[in-house]
Amino acid sequence: MQTTLSTQTVKVGSVEIGGPSFTVIAGPCSVESREQFLTTALAVKKSGAQLLRGGIWKVRTSAAAFQGLGQDSYSFISDVLKETGLQLVSEIMEPRQMAEIHEFVGMYQVGARNMQNTALLKELGRQKKPVLLKRGFGSLVDEWLKAADYIHREGNPNVVLCERGIRTFETATRFTLDLNSVVYVKDRTRLPVIVDPSHAVGISALVPRLAFASAAAGADGLIVEVHSDPTKALSDGLQALTLKGFDEMMSKLGRVLKAVDRSFDGKPS
Amino acid sequence: MQTTLSTQTVKVGSVEIGGPSFTVIAGPCSVESREQFLTTALAVKKSGAQLLRGGIWKVRTSAAAFQGLGQDSYSFISDVLKETGLQLVSEIMEPRQMAEIHEFVGMYQVGARNMQNTALLKELGRQKKPVLLKRGFGSLVDEWLKAADYIHREGNPNVVLCERGIRTFETATRFTLDLNSVVYVKDRTRLPVIVDPSHAVGISALVPRLAFASAAAGADGLIVEVHSDPTKALSDGLQALTLKGFDEMMSKLGRVLKAVDRSFDGKPS
Amino acid sequence: MQTTLSTQTVKVGSVEIGGPSFTVIAGPCSVESREQFLTTALAVKKSGAQLLRGGIWKVRTSAAAFQGLGQDSYSFISDVLKETGLQLVSEIMEPRQMAEIHEFVGMYQVGARNMQNTALLKELGRQKKPVLLKRGFGSLVDEWLKAADYIHREGNPNVVLCERGIRTFETATRFTLDLNSVVYVKDRTRLPVIVDPSHAVGISALVPRLAFASAAAGADGLIVEVHSDPTKALSDGLQALTLKGFDEMMSKLGRVLKAVDRSFDGKPS
Amino acid sequence: MQTTLSTQTVKVGSVEIGGPSFTVIAGPCSVESREQFLTTALAVKKSGAQLLRGGIWKVRTSAAAFQGLGQDSYSFISDVLKETGLQLVSEIMEPRQMAEIHEFVGMYQVGARNMQNTALLKELGRQKKPVLLKRGFGSLVDEWLKAADYIHREGNPNVVLCERGIRTFETATRFTLDLNSVVYVKDRTRLPVIVDPSHAVGISALVPRLAFASAAAGADGLIVEVHSDPTKALSDGLQALTLKGFDEMMSKLGRVLKAVDRSFDGKPS
Repeated sequence: MQTTLSTQTVKVGSVEIGGPSFTVIAGPCSVESREQFLTTALAVKKSGAQLLRGGIWKVRTSAAAFQGLGQDSYSFISDVLKETGLQLVSEIMEPRQMAEIHEFVGMYQVGARNMQNTALLKELGRQKKPVLLKRGFGSLVDEWLKAADYIHREGNPNVVLCERGIRTFETATRFTLDLNSVVYVKDRTRLPVIVDPSHAVGISALVPRLAFASAAAGADGLIVEVHSDPTKALSDGLQALTLKGFDEMMSKLGRVLKAVDRSFDGKPS
Repeated sequence: MQTTLSTQTVKVGSVEIGGPSFTVIAGPCSVESREQFLTTALAVKKSGAQLLRGGIWKVRTSAAAFQGLGQDSYSFISDVLKETGLQLVSEIMEPRQMAEIHEFVGMYQVGARNMQNTALLKELGRQKKPVLLKRGFGSLVDEWLKAADYIHREGNPNVVLCERGIRTFETATRFTLDLNSVVYVKDRTRLPVIVDPSHAVGISALVPRLAFASAAAGADGLIVEVHSDPTKALSDGLQALTLKGFDEMMSKLGRVLKAVDRSFDGKPS
Repeated sequence: MQTTLSTQTVKVGSVEIGGPSFTVIAGPCSVESREQFLTTALAVKKSGAQLLRGGIWKVRTSAAAFQGLGQDSYSFISDVLKETGLQLVSEIMEPRQMAEIHEFVGMYQVGARNMQNTALLKELGRQKKPVLLKRGFGSLVDEWLKAADYIHREGNPNVVLCERGIRTFETATRFTLDLNSVVYVKDRTRLPVIVDPSHAVGISALVPRLAFASAAAGADGLIVEVHSDPTKALSDGLQALTLKGFDEMMSKLGRVLKAVDRSFDGKPS
Repeated sequence: MQTTLSTQTVKVGSVEIGGPSFTVIAGPCSVESREQFLTTALAVKKSGAQLLRGGIWKVRTSAAAFQGLGQDSYSFISDVLKETGLQLVSEIMEPRQMAEIHEFVGMYQVGARNMQNTALLKELGRQKKPVLLKRGFGSLVDEWLKAADYIHREGNPNVVLCERGIRTFETATRFTLDLNSVVYVKDRTRLPVIVDPSHAVGISALVPRLAFASAAAGADGLIVEVHSDPTKALSDGLQALTLKGFDEMMSKLGRVLKAVDRSFDGKPS
């Protein structure tokens, strides 16, 4: 009934994922402007987030949808990171993008749609920055672990798994959060596992309770979408928490973590 | 971010489901013998369970599998209920069984395979005992709510929903626990919802952490399989907790519930 | 590459399912009126259907939806059967209904929602009329075969399986027709298997091509929804073929069957 | 009931996909040796295949599995193409591979695991060779069409869709072939759609009947795995047809196609 394997830890700057404390990554789905990104970054830091998320390019289902700011954002992203002291977690979609953003990215994220893009996985295995590997929404836990192995085999041991919901017949919510997978992987492997409740449910009002559930299940952290004004978000606005909503969630989260003997360094009490 | 609808309460004897306190139903998958049932019942009560589960007939996939003791168990079940003071939650599979067990059953359970057995639902709507309505493993949340409505329309308002995992492509665990459904239903309706982590994951070592997750997500209770000797269980032994395992889970559960402002009456502290 | 097992045959009146010829069951989802039922029955017979479908009670998701005519239809159903000489295939939902309709029903249908209603399966096993066992939309092929076994074990060998689509993440069509299951079952067992393309896709314009596909895959027959006026159907109108649409489908079907060395007795050429 | 939209045609050398005749692509999962590839190519051509499949690199779930011959095979692949006069259909996994194989590849295949690798899709849109776009096994029909649009928008109209099975709860077969998707896409769009029954079912004995079903459903062609010695295949041997098995399938296929008014140019009669 106890996790018998000690979890391997992965460092992003000075932030450790997989250790005794719980890690929260927060920020907007996409980096949309200097102001949006800075406002959100300062707020999530104040509420206790230890790492900042922000998409530079977006893998969108439709080619007509907003594809991310790309290189127009590099300069102000660096400024925001300097100002907040936060490390950036950002999605990479193809090896050629790495050179451009390698300098300022703290952790590369592999999105669900690229979990089995093995060319990308191998390339990420040949460098040392940590990798956040999202589970494909149509992928088995076994395939997810094997995707991590693609990175490990090339020489990079710094992989953190991220459960973000799978595709099922249920349509009331966007995807189906699979916490079975989290407890299963924690029980059978030493890999750190975090949860993305925002994509998993797709409805912002339901995100906090799934965040608490993830913490109680033994996840090592969360990645949460937060936006300074979700109603104006260029992507995924329906699932983003407001700054206030995130702050309230973080207050309650600390209590749940304590109940499962987990500390939380981010939030100054 | 808050549950805006107050939850309707359902009474099973003096035990209230859906109120401020959390309710735990525990016991064996099947009633197998007087000794097994009494030992388990006494132990789960001591650990804090407020209601006793125990199958008299089993809906088994295979006709060759153990189908339950049936009427051979009626007499000693009554004895065990008297001795422990617990109310029994037991599955009903067809209307003709009701007359036989009506006297000693506290709450009728409709299993996942019968969620859309509308003849049975209507019959349960025409009597007043509370009904625990499990979600079909291939059923939408919307269909689950409409199944509850079949019971309500006939005149019985005492329905408690039970999420027990849905069938997805994932095979690492028996089913996929869908906590999205729990937070969704709690957000949109007034129906009490409990969770069956035992069937949802099918691996006893993973049950406690999913129980904590369910509590943190805002469920109104749990139904958990506990067996005095899981290695000898005639059905579902792999997912049953031992008496000791259940007791340990209950101790920790109280702390999680407190963190989400939920009391737990069952466990004497 | 060949079906190595000879298929067991099941007789409904003088119509044999599972033999060298292909069997088509057609008719409305629900029996709605004498006129609707007679008009449809005469037309589908003329187009080559060998058996008549027609629901007396309906398992509906919502208790507010049309639940079938029930006993108000018994008398005119008998008249229509006499007039057309067709045998009726009709759904049974609970054992108590059997006595009422046993006299005039030629084949009992167990619907997808009741595939694991084991009380019903056992009752059907204790009588001799043939049973059409639909696959549950959330059920494994293995569970479907075991449900058939529930009937066999009680003494009734006359079971015909019916694939009717499973529930998947895809939402473009109502369910996902699983022809893999048909070729798999035909390859591994001796049970006759027919296909219900109407429920499997839910869009009438797509039914004929899936009917041809089913025939080419080696199915032993079809059950197809046909309505004298689909726009006025009280249930499932979107998936019902018109009388003319069914007739056109049947003409082309004969050619496909011939190509896979299967005869078709129903259609007078 | 008729396909109302005329299908757009895509040319691979002199072979037209999407016109009145049906197109069969056949060959091994992976190119393994000059002898294996030549033997298989000559045989499938003789049996009527119009295009040759053969993987140069493989997207494998496990990094420890055979990853394809890569550049060691370029020279003999060119020889085999010259000797047989067949065009090659081969999978591309990342843009950087294109330059190496562009000269001798007739049609690029995008595998299921890369269907939403938008960087790759865009690159394929910027050149003119035709693209075979497999459906992701966790992807909606709508997402599949939008993935095709990523290629179209960049200027390449030559896209052929390929249904290859989706992931469902069913485990008796490898994936679940979704012929609903084929008839749906043919009914709503002008894109040619072919079917891969080999990956969709994963059991070679069941491939021919699903091939016939696909033809009867109105698909524009097939892609089938054939191996000169499936028992020695380095990947996917269980689902590959033998040379003899493929030849037998092709003979019968012609009859099914004729029944649905479709010609088949490949097979010399």
